[in-house]
Amino acid sequence: MLAMHCARVCSVLMGCRTTTRALSIRSFPGVTLAQIDEEVAKLLELKAHLGGDDGKHQFVLKTAKGTRDYNPKQMAIREKVFNTIVSCFKRHGAETIDTPVFELKETLTGKYGEDSKLIYDLKDQGGELLSLRYDLTVPFARYLAMNKITNIKRYHIAKVYRRDNPAMTRGRYREFYQCDFDIAGQYDAMIPDAECLKIVHEILSELDLGDFRIKVNDRRILDGMFAVCGVPDNMFRTICSTVDKLDKLPWEAVKNEMVNEKGLSEEAADQIGVYVGMQGGMDLAERLLQDQKMCQSTQACAGLTDIKLLFSYLQLFQVTDKVVFDLSLARGLDYYTGIIYEAILTQAGVAPVAPETSNEAPTEECVTVGSVAGGGRYDGLVGMFDPKGRKVPCVGVSIGIERIFSIMEQKAEASTEKIRTTEVQVMVAAAQKNLLEERLRLITELWNAGIKAELMYKKSPKLLSQLQHCEESGIPLVAILGEQELKNGVVKLRNVATRDEVDISRADLIAEIKKRTSA
Amino acid sequence: MLAMHCARVCSVLMGCRTTTRALSIRSFPGVTLAQIDEEVAKLLELKAHLGGDDGKHQFVLKTAKGTRDYNPKQMAIREKVFNTIVSCFKRHGAETIDTPVFELKETLTGKYGEDSKLIYDLKDQGGELLSLRYDLTVPFARYLAMNKITNIKRYHIAKVYRRDNPAMTRGRYREFYQCDFDIAGQYDAMIPDAECLKIVHEILSELDLGDFRIKVNDRRILDGMFAVCGVPDNMFRTICSTVDKLDKLPWEAVKNEMVNEKGLSEEAADQIGVYVGMQGGMDLAERLLQDQKMCQSTQACAGLTDIKLLFSYLQLFQVTDKVVFDLSLARGLDYYTGIIYEAILTQAGVAPVAPETSNEAPTEECVTVGSVAGGGRYDGLVGMFDPKGRKVPCVGVSIGIERIFSIMEQKAEASTEKIRTTEVQVMVAAAQKNLLEERLRLITELWNAGIKAELMYKKSPKLLSQLQHCEESGIPLVAILGEQELKNGVVKLRNVATRDEVDISRADLIAEIKKRTSA
Repeated sequence: MLAMHCARVCSVLMGCRTTTRALSIRSFPGVTLAQIDEEVAKLLELKAHLGGDDGKHQFVLKTAKGTRDYNPKQMAIREKVFNTIVSCFKRHGAETIDTPVFELKETLTGKYGEDSKLIYDLKDQGGELLSLRYDLTVPFARYLAMNKITNIKRYHIAKVYRRDNPAMTRGRYREFYQCDFDIAGQYDAMIPDAECLKIVHEILSELDLGDFRIKVNDRRILDGMFAVCGVPDNMFRTICSTVDKLDKLPWEAVKNEMVNEKGLSEEAADQIGVYVGMQGGMDLAERLLQDQKMCQSTQACAGLTDIKLLFSYLQLFQVTDKVVFDLSLARGLDYYTGIIYEAILTQAGVAPVAPETSNEAPTEECVTVGSVAGGGRYDGLVGMFDPKGRKVPCVGVSIGIERIFSIMEQKAEASTEKIRTTEVQVMVAAAQKNLLEERLRLITELWNAGIKAELMYKKSPKLLSQLQHCEESGIPLVAILGEQELKNGVVKLRNVATRDEVDISRADLIAEIKKRTSA
Repeated sequence: MLAMHCARVCSVLMGCRTTTRALSIRSFPGVTLAQIDEEVAKLLELKAHLGGDDGKHQFVLKTAKGTRDYNPKQMAIREKVFNTIVSCFKRHGAETIDTPVFELKETLTGKYGEDSKLIYDLKDQGGELLSLRYDLTVPFARYLAMNKITNIKRYHIAKVYRRDNPAMTRGRYREFYQCDFDIAGQYDAMIPDAECLKIVHEILSELDLGDFRIKVNDRRILDGMFAVCGVPDNMFRTICSTVDKLDKLPWEAVKNEMVNEKGLSEEAADQIGVYVGMQGGMDLAERLLQDQKMCQSTQACAGLTDIKLLFSYLQLFQVTDKVVFDLSLARGLDYYTGIIYEAILTQAGVAPVAPETSNEAPTEECVTVGSVAGGGRYDGLVGMFDPKGRKVPCVGVSIGIERIFSIMEQKAEASTEKIRTTEVQVMVAAAQKNLLEERLRLITELWNAGIKAELMYKKSPKLLSQLQHCEESGIPLVAILGEQELKNGVVKLRNVATRDEVDISRADLIAEIKKRTSA
């Protein structure tokens, strides 16, 4: 049966290919989608057989490539980081939404430029063609268009999926969290944009990850710069992608790509080289507004004027100490239309990033852990989903949480402080054998009073092993029951750290535990 | 170009099928996996072209079938429900873990019986074959085996995926949350099992969803019952699946399936019919232990003895008011080995479930919203992943959160109480034009002091529209700046509900806001 079926499928792959070349689809009115599905299923089954060629199937116990489990300690760290981030988003008045992990494939089509090849597709099992979300921004835009929402300030924390080359020691995974904050709506220039930068500043300061810098630029300045430097219109996007590599490659390598791979004139490349070396603050924006060449582009002027306005708001927000206007910042995604920004940790010593190529000299920039937050303005994305093309201007920021986890994990490992993975306040223990029923009765009282309590799942556990469990998992109190305590209507309450023990009457126990554990 | 390519692919589907029947895979040493991939890609491309036959592609703005977005109001409800559940899990001393949304396909193979067809597979884009997780239990077992963990009490709240027929009004989706609590480890009988039921009782009570009942049974009792009723060994699983339908179908329909579809003798079916009509508590377990027929099965006796022990612990946990020993409870999944349970809401009037077939009389059971929690003991699952087959006994419970959301949403809609979707404490407003800078300065002070604050993103918003926004979104306070206030070094603090206004000095403002909003 299998052999016959395989033979049928194999015939597909062998001699028949070249027979009927000139026919079009219309010539096969009898070919149905179901028939194609059937053939596809057979081919894939054949593939599975070829893959397990030796007959012995070795079961591999692992997670999918580029993904990981989080153990309880990692989850404790993750919860702490999320709490900091969510508190900040809530402090700025954001609501939250959630969208499905997969979208119709066509929802994601045409949004990510060259990166589209990294999208995970679901298997065609009949029905709609689906893909795993690549970021939270496109689903957000789809959500706004679908529900005709023109004003919202929302955050969204969820996993996204990219079939990228994983570099897990540096916190780069195929499944990873994004923490996004976005403001949608038609507002006065640069006010929401400035708030996004304020948020990045607050979060990175509170997480205490060491010094950081937030680079700011504007897509309109980049495009204007390309125009005045003599880049042909149709090369803006690809030259922009090359400029984006400046955070990893030295200028010589970037110029080489522009000229030798992408065919830009050397003169144009050199002119770009002058601009992308510029960094500063409001002063740089003012200087460039006076720049003879830059002035020729109205686009660039609009961008520079907005950068000036942005910096004036950032001053009021007290965050200019970390923000730098950097003409080399490009960012890869297609959908940005205005301000763009990216935050990097600048403190050496924490998870240094090795240079991508080995022949470059290590520079100061190489000892950063790379980008930990990024975002920008995307005024056209929602319009791509609206049947009438109605635009909803948006600006947002995404916190690159996985790199932050990596750093926090390393810090936690280096520290002597023990991370608790539970919040148990008291262990209900027995001093003698056969007190299970009494322990169950007592723990019921505690649970019903809202106290976090645990007991060992044995009829007669040893007192020592009960106490040991408390020390290992950081439980601060033990409520010990023994024959004597039961007779006297008391519980021996033991402080695990100091080993002090006092008898507490059953009636007072709950209040006493609450008192002792209210930190 | 396209026509030529299509013709090549079409040739595959037409005449060539029947040519070389007797050949085996080995006869085609030249067929590579890459060639198969290529053919598959072409066939699917052809399918896409056939699908969009009329040439006009209509972009559809929707979420994938069986999935939904959560808007801010729904998220507020979801957060509340999750908080209740997580608090309970933490009160019982659970840690938390997380696993990737997809697993190697083979990790899920052979775990779900007939339901395996509902698993979502990812497209083969080169590399590993992956599937979306179907539940959290199998990934948990894989995690334990992979990390050689023999003891853990963990909860996991995450989305799972089933290509089921969605029934969204009843809270049945293709993407839905599971909230799982499991205890793994070799412990004394029924102590962790009883704690799982205590947890279900606590959560359903706290969520205040109306009256509920928790049905309990044991796989060993079912198997023993099948044996003594004369069901052949190889029919246990399929007859068990039929018994599982008793919560939706009357006995006559179930018997009909057993006898006429599955070929069980009418005599055996009738004997099963007597048992599955039995409900009770510890007394029923005791009676069945005396039952002449049941006694013949050592398996059934072991199960009944454990049910007795379980009820004795449940009495100490004060939850027997809701728990019923019900011999008709079967549960579909293959991996259960001992105690099984399921919680249903029994209160009529909330989201009643229509009978699946129309020709049955409505019974009392029909006005439930179906199962809202379920679980059981699965002592063999971890061993399926361990290279040496080492077993880790497990018992757990899964809260069916989507149905609970549906009910909470309906309740919220019926209620007059407004759900807030943000936590903003104060709006920073201007009484006159051109005070943006002053507003930015003040809101920076508030944010830096940890106060949740908002402002309108306009240079000169109208005071009325600022106040209106507060009323709509439930912001309790407004800090109003005007020329006079600035001159006097004060802020006018307005209570939105009462419309009271008082001048507060800038130095006292933060303390005053904190005092007024600490509920």
